[in-house]
Amino acid sequence: MSGNPAISRRGMDIQESPIRKLAPLAAAAKKRGIRVHHLNIGQPDIPTPIEFWDAVESNMKGVLAYGPSNGIPELREAICSYYARSGIHVASSQVMITTGGSEAVLFALMATCDPGDEVICFEPFYTNYNGFATIAGVKLIPVTSRVENGFHLPPSEEITSGISERTRAILICNPNNPTGTIFTDDELAELADIAMERNLFLLADEVYRDFAFDGREHSSILEFPAIADRAVVMDSISKRFSSCGARLGNVITRNEELMSVFMKFGQARLCPPTLSQYGATEMYKLLTDDYYNTMVAKYQRRRDILMEELHGEEGIFFLKPEGAFYATMRLPVDDSDDFAAWMLREFSVDGWTTMVAPAAGFYATPGMGMDEIRIAYVLEDEKMRQALDILKKGIRKYVSINQ
Amino acid sequence: MSGNPAISRRGMDIQESPIRKLAPLAAAAKKRGIRVHHLNIGQPDIPTPIEFWDAVESNMKGVLAYGPSNGIPELREAICSYYARSGIHVASSQVMITTGGSEAVLFALMATCDPGDEVICFEPFYTNYNGFATIAGVKLIPVTSRVENGFHLPPSEEITSGISERTRAILICNPNNPTGTIFTDDELAELADIAMERNLFLLADEVYRDFAFDGREHSSILEFPAIADRAVVMDSISKRFSSCGARLGNVITRNEELMSVFMKFGQARLCPPTLSQYGATEMYKLLTDDYYNTMVAKYQRRRDILMEELHGEEGIFFLKPEGAFYATMRLPVDDSDDFAAWMLREFSVDGWTTMVAPAAGFYATPGMGMDEIRIAYVLEDEKMRQALDILKKGIRKYVSINQ
Repeated sequence: MSGNPAISRRGMDIQESPIRKLAPLAAAAKKRGIRVHHLNIGQPDIPTPIEFWDAVESNMKGVLAYGPSNGIPELREAICSYYARSGIHVASSQVMITTGGSEAVLFALMATCDPGDEVICFEPFYTNYNGFATIAGVKLIPVTSRVENGFHLPPSEEITSGISERTRAILICNPNNPTGTIFTDDELAELADIAMERNLFLLADEVYRDFAFDGREHSSILEFPAIADRAVVMDSISKRFSSCGARLGNVITRNEELMSVFMKFGQARLCPPTLSQYGATEMYKLLTDDYYNTMVAKYQRRRDILMEELHGEEGIFFLKPEGAFYATMRLPVDDSDDFAAWMLREFSVDGWTTMVAPAAGFYATPGMGMDEIRIAYVLEDEKMRQALDILKKGIRKYVSINQ
Repeated sequence: MSGNPAISRRGMDIQESPIRKLAPLAAAAKKRGIRVHHLNIGQPDIPTPIEFWDAVESNMKGVLAYGPSNGIPELREAICSYYARSGIHVASSQVMITTGGSEAVLFALMATCDPGDEVICFEPFYTNYNGFATIAGVKLIPVTSRVENGFHLPPSEEITSGISERTRAILICNPNNPTGTIFTDDELAELADIAMERNLFLLADEVYRDFAFDGREHSSILEFPAIADRAVVMDSISKRFSSCGARLGNVITRNEELMSVFMKFGQARLCPPTLSQYGATEMYKLLTDDYYNTMVAKYQRRRDILMEELHGEEGIFFLKPEGAFYATMRLPVDDSDDFAAWMLREFSVDGWTTMVAPAAGFYATPGMGMDEIRIAYVLEDEKMRQALDILKKGIRKYVSINQ
């Protein structure tokens, strides 16, 4: 292909998804007849609520037309009511519907940062932030959180030492993917203080806000009035309503100027998917506490199974996850990329193997996370136990042959 | 809000949609009891085919899960079959499903250009290219096409004079939005030659490829083997299947390296909407020539009504549109922005008015298009006649009071 025009540098630079890049090995395993437990991706197994399908069905007619660029008003109002149940009051004009939480993150980065600007981000972080940062030309400045204290915030001076003249925002995920950590009110207050002192936006991915265990209450950055104009929340129905394929999220801010900029980004891509919005509206309207409580109890039980099966195992280290449905843990391996690939290529128990996500892709600092993996606990109890048992056996075997 | 962090420059710079920005005036008119004919936006009125709804219905169960980042294989294969009917042969690995044609354009710009790079674009052009260019940090270099020759290509030296060291691609829309022009094979060959001589990609938005009138055959840039590795086609089901709200498009290239970059951009946003993909697959599979022919005949008839009602009217100038469902025409006004707003604010006939898109937003050169409007002929015959009659009367009135 000599003489062809070159691919862009950002096209070369943008990372391949570390969650999805092992997919070909999984496909090859399945071709060999090996069945795979997927603990590698946050795809809930819970059926999408009937309220979604009913709403889709009753709108299956006529022209599937463009909707408003900021989403249909009924959905934006339903989201306000959902937040009001947690005592958080926002107007529907402060909510904009996006095409997945993905687009919410991209809009937040693009509206607060110009190319070359920097955003503070606590590693390990949701790996797709890397992709959005590359697209937006934004540099993510990692501040490392550690497995030893359950990935809670590092000391304040470690956070502020990452701030430069180009820093525009702090980006958090709370409850956290990939660690399962929920930041305390004190931690959020500390971040709010830093945002004010250093004149930054605070961007919070709160996609897992319902997933808080052991009676914890998740706090939103929308509950800190001092940063009302600095706070941007990114949200999604993907996990809350097991609707990943609907591609619907939203972005919330009380900063009017920022919202008008989100709106312009939204106009460029016309509108989010229409049918999904009808479905989401009815789920927000009709699902009761019972739905949320049942769902959280289910994930908490799975978290408990994770603790029973892996916690305290020799060479495996992690603290009890507090929310979301992930855990990041240290393994007795030097290269978890190699280990995860080996599980798919060479290991199985009774025709089954377990797929996990190597953690290095969740770090921005080179070399970090090489001995860690992320687990998504999104399987039914018995499958979870089986998947974790295979993982445990795989670790022992891998360690024994690599000693 | 003193002391708040600043919005990004790109956030301030990105244009408000000139198609959508008059929406508040339309809403206000409706509130006053005035009904509005929408000739301002390319929202087809044709019902979404039953094949779409049937496919959605038969997938309304279980978990609405993430799909593959490049789209479900069945849809990619169905698209290959659709292209094969026009004698264009591409493999399903050369097709990637996107979230609307919008995302296809964005991926094409980001994969071929770095921030600061330039793309040649014939103005007037689909105004949302401006938004994608701002997001991608790409500079669109306008080469002006003119109403006098039906917006066909300007002389070759005008095209090449826009090319600089930073130019990475030529971007066309064919059949054209907003002009209704279809480029001839000779014109496409000329662009292919320039792309080869100047080492550029050729990006073609062929969303309206089915909409060719008077027995014309639309040619794709995929039919020029010499530029196989330079050609990127952006496509969508929005207009073809009257499914704007499905948010489904695709990008096609035979350049493997480029496709692998598209895939990485796609992984960042996980996947396109799942339900829409089931619907699109069945439409591609089941709809026959009869569907396409009926649809094109309908739009051609509307084009003919446009000619009957407006062509040759005093002060109005345009050549017969050849495809798509738009016309860009010169009016006897100095400021079509003001005229379009006036139609909504002050003019009506028997309780109706007509909304059009001012053309300045489709030009990148300041001052161009101030005396032009774009019309989308997307209404049933009688409504079209009524809408155009009101427009004609509005123009006369506006001219008489502004003389």
